[in-house]
Amino acid sequence: MEQRLTMVGLGTNALKTSADFYNNIFGWQRREASNGDIIFYPLPVGVMLSLYGRKALAEDATVDDKGSGVKGFTLAYNTRSEKEADDIIEELRGKGVKIIKEPEKVFWGGYSSCIADPDNNLWEIAFNPYMIGSKL
Amino acid sequence: MEQRLTMVGLGTNALKTSADFYNNIFGWQRREASNGDIIFYPLPVGVMLSLYGRKALAEDATVDDKGSGVKGFTLAYNTRSEKEADDIIEELRGKGVKIIKEPEKVFWGGYSSCIADPDNNLWEIAFNPYMIGSKL
Repeated sequence: MEQRLTMVGLGTNALKTSADFYNNIFGWQRREASNGDIIFYPLPVGVMLSLYGRKALAEDATVDDKGSGVKGFTLAYNTRSEKEADDIIEELRGKGVKIIKEPEKVFWGGYSSCIADPDNNLWEIAFNPYMIGSKL
Repeated sequence: MEQRLTMVGLGTNALKTSADFYNNIFGWQRREASNGDIIFYPLPVGVMLSLYGRKALAEDATVDDKGSGVKGFTLAYNTRSEKEADDIIEELRGKGVKIIKEPEKVFWGGYSSCIADPDNNLWEIAFNPYMIGSKL
């Protein structure tokens, strides 16, 4: 098994609402699958974000579609500077996005903020100096 | 805002249990952060998977750590053939991993299976012919 992740699939409560968010608020270009029930956003080199009905996602994995609450995961958009994090938060605020945590210096040495998508999936917008070695 | 995702962070119920899973069952090499409370797995070009305490994840995002149930997301390991998906499932089964869905042809034209990590995060192991255009 190689060390790789090729897709993150989000189960949405309302596909159109979520797609509007990623299309119009984040401003991302989508690639539609033929059946129209799932929407793909290609991301840099080999990773995709997909949106899919939450119920369909559960059915597809053959698990129960019950429960609610904290999801136990975040998605992150790591920036190249603190200013870039500030700029993105201001851009998103201007578009009406729910800011969960304003940018601030955090104990682990970074500069971090957090927003929510329409399904309350958390996106961390952060400058993480320890990721400098990664190909961002 | 660019079209990019740089990290997927999983909030674990027991960091050591989850780390053992990704280290020893998936066989991945980890990169430890200086504080030891979070474990990073670099993935191809610019994406990382991180493991972090679920409670700490909620605190970091300033959200409540309540709730349970279906998480509304999956992670995917897309293979280059149906056989590769079969081989990975057999490898994981041999290591005692919980197989949620055996590999099977699915309605959208792919060949898909599903396993669970120790926190019941779902990994889809699938051959998806529509991802051929992606750089896998």
